[in-house]
Amino acid sequence: MLPSKETEAGLSVAGRVRAVFPPLVTPFRADGALDLGTFEANLDLYTPHDLGGVLVLGSNGEAGSLDEGEKLALVGIARAHTQGRLLLVGTGLESTRGTIALTRKVADLGADAALVLTPHYYKARMTSEALARHFEAVADASPVPILLYSVPAFTGIVWPAGLAEALSAHPRIVGIKESSGDVGLLARLRAGTPPSFAVVSGSAPTFYPALCVDASAGILAVACCAPGVVAALYRAHEAGDHGRAGDLQRALMPLAVAVTAGHGVAGLKAAMDAAGFHGGHVRAPLLPAGEAARREVASALDNLRATVA
Amino acid sequence: MLPSKETEAGLSVAGRVRAVFPPLVTPFRADGALDLGTFEANLDLYTPHDLGGVLVLGSNGEAGSLDEGEKLALVGIARAHTQGRLLLVGTGLESTRGTIALTRKVADLGADAALVLTPHYYKARMTSEALARHFEAVADASPVPILLYSVPAFTGIVWPAGLAEALSAHPRIVGIKESSGDVGLLARLRAGTPPSFAVVSGSAPTFYPALCVDASAGILAVACCAPGVVAALYRAHEAGDHGRAGDLQRALMPLAVAVTAGHGVAGLKAAMDAAGFHGGHVRAPLLPAGEAARREVASALDNLRATVA
Amino acid sequence: MLPSKETEAGLSVAGRVRAVFPPLVTPFRADGALDLGTFEANLDLYTPHDLGGVLVLGSNGEAGSLDEGEKLALVGIARAHTQGRLLLVGTGLESTRGTIALTRKVADLGADAALVLTPHYYKARMTSEALARHFEAVADASPVPILLYSVPAFTGIVWPAGLAEALSAHPRIVGIKESSGDVGLLARLRAGTPPSFAVVSGSAPTFYPALCVDASAGILAVACCAPGVVAALYRAHEAGDHGRAGDLQRALMPLAVAVTAGHGVAGLKAAMDAAGFHGGHVRAPLLPAGEAARREVASALDNLRATVA
Amino acid sequence: MLPSKETEAGLSVAGRVRAVFPPLVTPFRADGALDLGTFEANLDLYTPHDLGGVLVLGSNGEAGSLDEGEKLALVGIARAHTQGRLLLVGTGLESTRGTIALTRKVADLGADAALVLTPHYYKARMTSEALARHFEAVADASPVPILLYSVPAFTGIVWPAGLAEALSAHPRIVGIKESSGDVGLLARLRAGTPPSFAVVSGSAPTFYPALCVDASAGILAVACCAPGVVAALYRAHEAGDHGRAGDLQRALMPLAVAVTAGHGVAGLKAAMDAAGFHGGHVRAPLLPAGEAARREVASALDNLRATVA
Repeated sequence: MLPSKETEAGLSVAGRVRAVFPPLVTPFRADGALDLGTFEANLDLYTPHDLGGVLVLGSNGEAGSLDEGEKLALVGIARAHTQGRLLLVGTGLESTRGTIALTRKVADLGADAALVLTPHYYKARMTSEALARHFEAVADASPVPILLYSVPAFTGIVWPAGLAEALSAHPRIVGIKESSGDVGLLARLRAGTPPSFAVVSGSAPTFYPALCVDASAGILAVACCAPGVVAALYRAHEAGDHGRAGDLQRALMPLAVAVTAGHGVAGLKAAMDAAGFHGGHVRAPLLPAGEAARREVASALDNLRATVA
Repeated sequence: MLPSKETEAGLSVAGRVRAVFPPLVTPFRADGALDLGTFEANLDLYTPHDLGGVLVLGSNGEAGSLDEGEKLALVGIARAHTQGRLLLVGTGLESTRGTIALTRKVADLGADAALVLTPHYYKARMTSEALARHFEAVADASPVPILLYSVPAFTGIVWPAGLAEALSAHPRIVGIKESSGDVGLLARLRAGTPPSFAVVSGSAPTFYPALCVDASAGILAVACCAPGVVAALYRAHEAGDHGRAGDLQRALMPLAVAVTAGHGVAGLKAAMDAAGFHGGHVRAPLLPAGEAARREVASALDNLRATVA
Repeated sequence: MLPSKETEAGLSVAGRVRAVFPPLVTPFRADGALDLGTFEANLDLYTPHDLGGVLVLGSNGEAGSLDEGEKLALVGIARAHTQGRLLLVGTGLESTRGTIALTRKVADLGADAALVLTPHYYKARMTSEALARHFEAVADASPVPILLYSVPAFTGIVWPAGLAEALSAHPRIVGIKESSGDVGLLARLRAGTPPSFAVVSGSAPTFYPALCVDASAGILAVACCAPGVVAALYRAHEAGDHGRAGDLQRALMPLAVAVTAGHGVAGLKAAMDAAGFHGGHVRAPLLPAGEAARREVASALDNLRATVA
Repeated sequence: MLPSKETEAGLSVAGRVRAVFPPLVTPFRADGALDLGTFEANLDLYTPHDLGGVLVLGSNGEAGSLDEGEKLALVGIARAHTQGRLLLVGTGLESTRGTIALTRKVADLGADAALVLTPHYYKARMTSEALARHFEAVADASPVPILLYSVPAFTGIVWPAGLAEALSAHPRIVGIKESSGDVGLLARLRAGTPPSFAVVSGSAPTFYPALCVDASAGILAVACCAPGVVAALYRAHEAGDHGRAGDLQRALMPLAVAVTAGHGVAGLKAAMDAAGFHGGHVRAPLLPAGEAARREVASALDNLRATVA
């Protein structure tokens, strides 16, 4: 029985954030229109894998390039195809008011938890106090648990020391996704929050060392195109098999780098195409992956298969 | 006759971006709701001043914290109260598609030009090529002229060398608002674009030196609370009176810094309240100005009045 | 046989960089004068510990604040008191010429290897090519093996992708000390260089996860004040005891952070004083540790002792 | 009467920092050895120009790549060939102690003032307080007046608000060279310090706008290869001829950018060669200017001559 299946009765959401989750991409057609059928097809392709659920409307989902109607359609479809597993949904907007409104709507559609991005336009004003009030207000108003979401490469905001530790006292703030790849920060977050608080790695190139400092889970782009390997890494560490976990991490590294720092969402979509999933087009202003990028991700994927097989 | 009145017949939009424009704030009530009546009242307070028009939905307008309906309502009101002057409207969203859609809507409502913010979430992907394609696609689809908008303090993106120079060849890209305060960059933009291309300063602390390197205009936060002084500075420089322009710049400096780098939008709103305009509340996650900030901006305003009077 | 490849008893220097090394502080008197006697006393205090040797003239040694005579005196003393262990010496100066000259001098005094800091004053010019030529020229001229040294917090230079991988082909470039704490970078360095190339962690807050991605060794500030615990962590990992290694890492964390990011060299010296070593004064422009910093490091040290004992 | 306040013919050093100064390059031979004869020849080539004196051992002088003996030799020669004009000498080292020692030595050799670079290795520790103590200690011990020197592109340290304003009260701290090109900062420094305090621009691309906000002088790389034009710009502004000053600034811009941000010291040396001065080689790790860079600076120089003639 899959670990995500046996937990419906009573286990908290945070308690179920102990696994690997792909942050789903949003497939577009060549003309930029949403391709919901392809999105749906991907969801079913993930079903057989050892995953804790999925994240919709994250950074890899090009959430900032979607309008609200598109977002809600994606959530509805994801809910229908993620039965028995966690449906995490990114709801962070620039304003507290907008974030609350969207969080309520996705909760109505069945989201299990909301991932709330750091607001970041007015960078210099996003003090620890401003961020604390924002996350607290969202959590106060949210019908579902909240995961904080820090991703400095996109927001330009370094996560403030002590903020997650303070917010972890809120009954509906149940974890944080930390995507900078700073393993030392993950370790400090782990040390400063209760064991029930989920400290989630958002950086595949450091997933194994993150697990070594007791990260709870991974929401990792590379899990969109290589879910089996990432899940196997997670389980190897869980079983105390450091040798195998380290081997899988080394094998994953080139692909993990290529689909994030290397070529971004367009690279991830190309890797999904090469792996039998459906990446589809990106939405402008993102540029499509060039030939060289496509070859690089395909080659990284081939090497991964050869190594792991 | 006000310079903005005599130009309706035939002068291009870019040709009319030769003046000072306040980037209007969006007043909110204490509960975060939009306060349209106050917005309207401010517009009428600007009418007697020597301004080229107004900008709606800029960074000082907390555009990223508004939903589309709110944005369109503000544009409609602004159009009704800005007769005979330019109505510039910020329409930049993260996606090219969304930006085009919003630009068309505000053009329908009577906007004279759209100010298009640099998309910035996927920072590492926003290469010169990606940005060029974005701005060109928006300009191709826009019914009204386009002003580029660079504001690295908010976007985290340094404006790429050569981009504006290349885009200035597009018939509907008629200028750039540069808000970093980098006077050397303004000078290079001026040197590399046709004289008809508007190079607009978005940084009041360097407005006079920007004019010295032939900036065309200013869209400046401080013009929301001290429109007369900023306009007088512009006209002094235009008349070749460097002594007076320099004096006005020096007099403006403390207030100009306080309402931008110092205390941001909340500080600007406090200064507007102190100056007889209506700032109103900010929308969270921005925090309201504290007592010390209110005192500082009020004092800077008093000093400005005493100096200039 | 190249002298750089084989040293005492046949084992190469790189082969001996498989342990923990304290980056020695340089004690000063209150008036800023060098305190060689105290330096010597510290060396003898490290002798009983399970260390691979010592580093002299690193960042924690305030090397940039020493003149050449002071540097050579410290090397001479360190050599005399580090018999049978590796004596690593920081020799990186801004110019290639100066670095070569100093490297030769410390080699004459018996240094086993030189740690060569990234030159960094002309940041924008320090391209991968410029750095490659610098390190190669130093290695070509050096009588002893070279360890590259990247520490972006001090140099402002992010280590270029592929540089260490290319330089690892040089017969006298035998490793790199990476002090940013970026465990993903360590993993990539490890993956891209031969197993004989030492990939050394310079960041104690991530030492255990660094070992998990096969870092060779640690040159860690906290080893100056808690050498036994750091060595025990290293050995626990070496023995495959991940539980104990993780526990020791968690126990070390507060002290490790306090003596680096928290309070810097002054904090480290205070911790050494509290731990029975001799920190002594810092040299200006560094400021001495304040009372609060002293209490914090002393408390972190007490907690460490209580946890580990 | 303090020796620092009055010099030859009664005018203070700060009072004489009202002109253009070239920050002299240090010519090297192909093998990296110092080329003192060429240095001397350059000095005589500057004599006929309308300059306030020269700066030796600045960033363009590759000071960080020179040993102390080389530095003193250069100062001695410069003194002999700069009779009647100001000899400014860069003396900033990482330690306060070393900076004081070098300042005293160059004062003994006849330097009129010392330019003291922000210490920067321990960036996070270089608080406003640490920097204040450093500059005050140097000024207390210096026999000659001190100019502060901020150059964030090389130091990575943003100049702290209020620091120069506080230090301007010290009787021997008589000015600041600000090289970031931030004209707004220059204006704030000017507004916050006494008129006798020299606020010096170190950025040629913004020299004219810097003069518009009342900068006192310019220490500008481009003055090494085009001293006449830079001096003419300064005098045009002094005479109130803004039209000519602006024209000269526009004409200078491409060369000014090429020899700083564009190609650095190697580019400047190539421009000097092309202009009839003697640039000579750079010292590694700087790389020599490539063919393209040489052509670009030569072409910028030709265009400048054609425009100005």
